[in-house]
Amino acid sequence: MTVLLRRDDLHASVSDPESASMNFLNEVAARFPAAISLAAGRPYDGFHTTDDLDRYLRGYLAHLEALGLSHEQRQRQLLQYGRTNGHLGALIARMLLVDEGIEVPEQAVMVTSGCQEAMVVALRGLCARPGDVVLAVEPCYVGLTGAARVLGVEVVPVPESAEGLDPDTVPAVVAAVRASGRRPRALYLVPNFANPSGASMPVAARHRLLEVAAECDLLLLEDDPYGLFGLDDEPRPTLKALDTGERVVYLGSFAKSCFPGARVGFLVADQTVVDAVGRRTLLAEELSAVKSLLTVNTSPVAQAVIGGFLVESGCSVRAAGKEKTAFYRRNLRTLLGALETSFGGDPRVHWNTPAGGFFAVLDVPLTADEALLETSGRDYGVLWTPMSFFYGFDGRGPGGGGRRQIRLSCSALPPEDIGEGVRRLAQLVGDRAEEER
Amino acid sequence: MTVLLRRDDLHASVSDPESASMNFLNEVAARFPAAISLAAGRPYDGFHTTDDLDRYLRGYLAHLEALGLSHEQRQRQLLQYGRTNGHLGALIARMLLVDEGIEVPEQAVMVTSGCQEAMVVALRGLCARPGDVVLAVEPCYVGLTGAARVLGVEVVPVPESAEGLDPDTVPAVVAAVRASGRRPRALYLVPNFANPSGASMPVAARHRLLEVAAECDLLLLEDDPYGLFGLDDEPRPTLKALDTGERVVYLGSFAKSCFPGARVGFLVADQTVVDAVGRRTLLAEELSAVKSLLTVNTSPVAQAVIGGFLVESGCSVRAAGKEKTAFYRRNLRTLLGALETSFGGDPRVHWNTPAGGFFAVLDVPLTADEALLETSGRDYGVLWTPMSFFYGFDGRGPGGGGRRQIRLSCSALPPEDIGEGVRRLAQLVGDRAEEER
Repeated sequence: MTVLLRRDDLHASVSDPESASMNFLNEVAARFPAAISLAAGRPYDGFHTTDDLDRYLRGYLAHLEALGLSHEQRQRQLLQYGRTNGHLGALIARMLLVDEGIEVPEQAVMVTSGCQEAMVVALRGLCARPGDVVLAVEPCYVGLTGAARVLGVEVVPVPESAEGLDPDTVPAVVAAVRASGRRPRALYLVPNFANPSGASMPVAARHRLLEVAAECDLLLLEDDPYGLFGLDDEPRPTLKALDTGERVVYLGSFAKSCFPGARVGFLVADQTVVDAVGRRTLLAEELSAVKSLLTVNTSPVAQAVIGGFLVESGCSVRAAGKEKTAFYRRNLRTLLGALETSFGGDPRVHWNTPAGGFFAVLDVPLTADEALLETSGRDYGVLWTPMSFFYGFDGRGPGGGGRRQIRLSCSALPPEDIGEGVRRLAQLVGDRAEEER
Repeated sequence: MTVLLRRDDLHASVSDPESASMNFLNEVAARFPAAISLAAGRPYDGFHTTDDLDRYLRGYLAHLEALGLSHEQRQRQLLQYGRTNGHLGALIARMLLVDEGIEVPEQAVMVTSGCQEAMVVALRGLCARPGDVVLAVEPCYVGLTGAARVLGVEVVPVPESAEGLDPDTVPAVVAAVRASGRRPRALYLVPNFANPSGASMPVAARHRLLEVAAECDLLLLEDDPYGLFGLDDEPRPTLKALDTGERVVYLGSFAKSCFPGARVGFLVADQTVVDAVGRRTLLAEELSAVKSLLTVNTSPVAQAVIGGFLVESGCSVRAAGKEKTAFYRRNLRTLLGALETSFGGDPRVHWNTPAGGFFAVLDVPLTADEALLETSGRDYGVLWTPMSFFYGFDGRGPGGGGRRQIRLSCSALPPEDIGEGVRRLAQLVGDRAEEER
């Protein structure tokens, strides 16, 4: 007798609505390969080649030799199992100091198998009991809500404003959660050029959020994949850089600053943990037990690739990333210009003007759902992401928000395709808004 | 005000007893670096060098070119995000056919960030509800019990015999679990040269276990990291090779057959899943949602390293591993010979005679606990692992079993150190057994 498993007997994360949405998006993209994708939020392909891999590996090995490691030690560091929290702590701590003015000990850094694992580790470590919940800005990156779902952790939304999270909306949410007997363990947000909204928090709001976090006794999970890609050089200090009270667990990624295929991310957790007998450790050290049970340690080969990149750049991904920054700036400006060109005369259509990053949001006078996306791919040759995918993660389900909104991404396209993509989208919106009227 | 977190407010997996045990072991090893370690179960260092990395990467790129991938496609495959279940499915399916006679479609293969992630993915996907439990052979590899703890999944022990798991003990455990209202979702075991016991299941018992699994409607999680390393060339078919009813989810690793630093493992799940509208998929495809929420995908760079190794070996890790097999055979024979030399005259001491693998178990006439291990490291210069670390994972806690047993590992040592390590251990046992008398 052959096994036949029922899908609804598998864990809820298997039929995760966000996963289903993203699968739908991938399927549509596969069915209409000629469509211009304003949906893909991945970094542009053109910045690295596989020739970089060997150079980075050799550069990292030379770095280890300069640090005094013997031939045997260097071989072991790349090829054996290794320290759970990884061997890039010192280089990453240096990078955070050079690029962001964040001062943390290397022991507070955990190298992870991409930033996704950093989210899982942080949520798992902090959410200990059934009533422990995480707060998250809404609309929210699906990686965070998915990580929570895989662990069975409830996510409580905190609505975002046009200027990112409004700190003064947080205390009421915290109070309501506590009044219901649950514990709010942390608040997740992307202060710089958020995915999906493109919104950024003003510096004053960042300071205020840190005050609120202290008043509410709340940790902040700061995710910062896009911080390098501001439209201008105005400093936008991370929450972690402003954090004098160790309120912030910082989540980092090399997917955009280097390339995604290394799958190397990190978390910074310099909070002090005290046990029953008064012994003190850093949160990153405690979380290593969780990390070891998920993936043992992050591939030391992949770490060495990123290590070589860091060594080559003098631990400044900002300095190394000037070409990337210029590219994404041009693309975002091109997108905003194309929106003006194609929609500027239409009073029913609005969009925001992000100060950087990969994304902008378009408000349209029609329901931007999966059916419309399918029509868009098939008949208009352009793909985008329904904003509703990023709402309703607290169980309200579809219809929770973003129903007449579209996320546009400009990161993966050659700039010459962006205008044409937006022109096709305007055609769709014009045709269909007529019909819906 | 600076954050101060209480350790007992963090998740139970942070203070996981197995993690604590393994940390203790690592600490002891760090404090007594000159001690001979019969504790370390990692593979020997001498089989690969970092020079292999570039060759494997180039070999894999050439393989992709031969498959017809363009330069751009090859670059993207290594450097971008990629397919959640990875891009080694075809090579791994070929390897399983060539080496093990396992016939599965490549769509049933998921590449994971080490075998640890494969365990997490399988447990998470299968254990959907609070009463869903996993059965596991006891004594058990701590990676499995740890994966269950991080997910909050209960593990129910099935005691192992000297000949590995006795299939006819399984139905009573399954019945008891069901009678209590819980669902046994799978049974975890290592049929070949188990960690920690070294025990192997006779072929007849493997056939019987598959019958029992069908009778009990139970899936089997077969973990096979040591299958290459039998003392002889006698065929020991994996459960998956004998599995005509798709009862077995197979967990694999390249940590021993290639090297650990790639952190590439895999799972094979060819079970059919049917949803509410009758749509059929493979379990590995459904589990990809879970994998994507843990680590997105396994580093394509690390996958390419293993891919190059597979291409170079003609997809036979058995053929490529002859030197490794010979080394581990010699080490295990050396260990068994040294036990005879050092303990052969002592009627109070017994040990098993594994047919292969990295481990053997020594029964000693004294309590083999952390205190004795510390004494052993400090005063006798030899390290080993208390077998009690591998018992009591169902909450019975320490004292659940293995109290007067020691796990000896011979995998990481040069063979010339093994005899001296055992001689030191015999000295310890002789001295302390006198005292305890």
